[in-house]
Amino acid sequence: MATRDLVVGFDADDTLWHNETIFEQTHERYRALLAHYHDAATVDRTLFATEMRNLDLYGYGVKGFTLSAIETAIQLTAGKIRAKEIRELIELGRSMLAHPVELLEGVEEALGALAGKHRLVLITKGDLRDQERKLAKSGLAPHFRHIEILSEKSPDSYAAIFRRHGIAPADFLMIGNSLKSDILPVLALGGAGAYVPYHITWAAERVADLPVADGRFFQLKTLRELPAVLAALGAR
Amino acid sequence: MATRDLVVGFDADDTLWHNETIFEQTHERYRALLAHYHDAATVDRTLFATEMRNLDLYGYGVKGFTLSAIETAIQLTAGKIRAKEIRELIELGRSMLAHPVELLEGVEEALGALAGKHRLVLITKGDLRDQERKLAKSGLAPHFRHIEILSEKSPDSYAAIFRRHGIAPADFLMIGNSLKSDILPVLALGGAGAYVPYHITWAAERVADLPVADGRFFQLKTLRELPAVLAALGAR
Repeated sequence: MATRDLVVGFDADDTLWHNETIFEQTHERYRALLAHYHDAATVDRTLFATEMRNLDLYGYGVKGFTLSAIETAIQLTAGKIRAKEIRELIELGRSMLAHPVELLEGVEEALGALAGKHRLVLITKGDLRDQERKLAKSGLAPHFRHIEILSEKSPDSYAAIFRRHGIAPADFLMIGNSLKSDILPVLALGGAGAYVPYHITWAAERVADLPVADGRFFQLKTLRELPAVLAALGAR
Repeated sequence: MATRDLVVGFDADDTLWHNETIFEQTHERYRALLAHYHDAATVDRTLFATEMRNLDLYGYGVKGFTLSAIETAIQLTAGKIRAKEIRELIELGRSMLAHPVELLEGVEEALGALAGKHRLVLITKGDLRDQERKLAKSGLAPHFRHIEILSEKSPDSYAAIFRRHGIAPADFLMIGNSLKSDILPVLALGGAGAYVPYHITWAAERVADLPVADGRFFQLKTLRELPAVLAALGAR
């Protein structure tokens, strides 16, 4: 079988390092703060509705989340929440931004092994400064030829990356924990996708069904299984 | 005289479209909201101090500004500010994000005249989604070969752009309203700068002295004067 040169794209949050767990810890403290007004399910549902309503204007990331959390708290308490508690929410947001970056299992070894053989690209969405800071803290930047921080992951935004870096979609493999953001847009463009679920998936990223893409879709437990995917794709 | 191919970089906020005026309107409403607690000078000074303290964590942009404004309001009222007033601050932030983009005088003509002759690059700093939205609203995107949205403008971040796009610093002219962000880093790398002051300069962007860079530094009143700058640089 002829071997191929692949370009390998990696998502960042919950693919290379823990992220949704930090949001989950914040959600717990948020429910506790509002516990004598509403049950946890109402708090979660209302906060999520606010986030979705604000998403187009705020985009992804901690700052928009914090603003939505303050707005929801005012709404759910009919304006009775105290300034002191709102200051706690601002502090919660700040501690999320300042949180240490904790790599997922096997990430350094997987990137180290691939970087010598393939062109690696980091493709993440979210807040520019926060993503840059997490990448710097992670120590992983030297493995990547290109860093792409997007406001949204869509077929159009992947296609723009392919054009910018001269990547043929058929020679591209994207690895990530979100079917919606990392896998489906790349499959739609003719690339391959390796889905590595994280143990929590943010509601906004959930999709109903696994994609069908013969020989171009893979599901892994950890990045340690990547060599088998590359072999299946006929990579060098 | 031999003619040269120049790459021309443009800043966006307060160079291509009005921005600081929107912040100034918000500041006025902010001072009014806190007027029975503190005089305007104290409000301005305290808000600016909060913004500077949060800048490393939040970066530039409306969402970080809004969070700093809420934090400052809680501080300046010793926690007496009402949730209803904090909701007003959130609304103020949202209306800044949703504000129409108003181009500065002469911008469309200047870009239209240059785009046919030179490679134009938009180089802006701030919030990714907000800058993308303003660019889309402006209708100016088709004039630019590359769009670069940075979290900070420094000699390093300009040098990275030069490498990415194969730009020789000596053939680069940057145009913008901030000496600190648009002009000084480019002069330091050996490029040329055209400074076009806006009628308001945010305190964080102010520098004491005009740069001295023989034949590489220009100060303009409007972008209508650009052809003379390009002629002085020996451009085609």
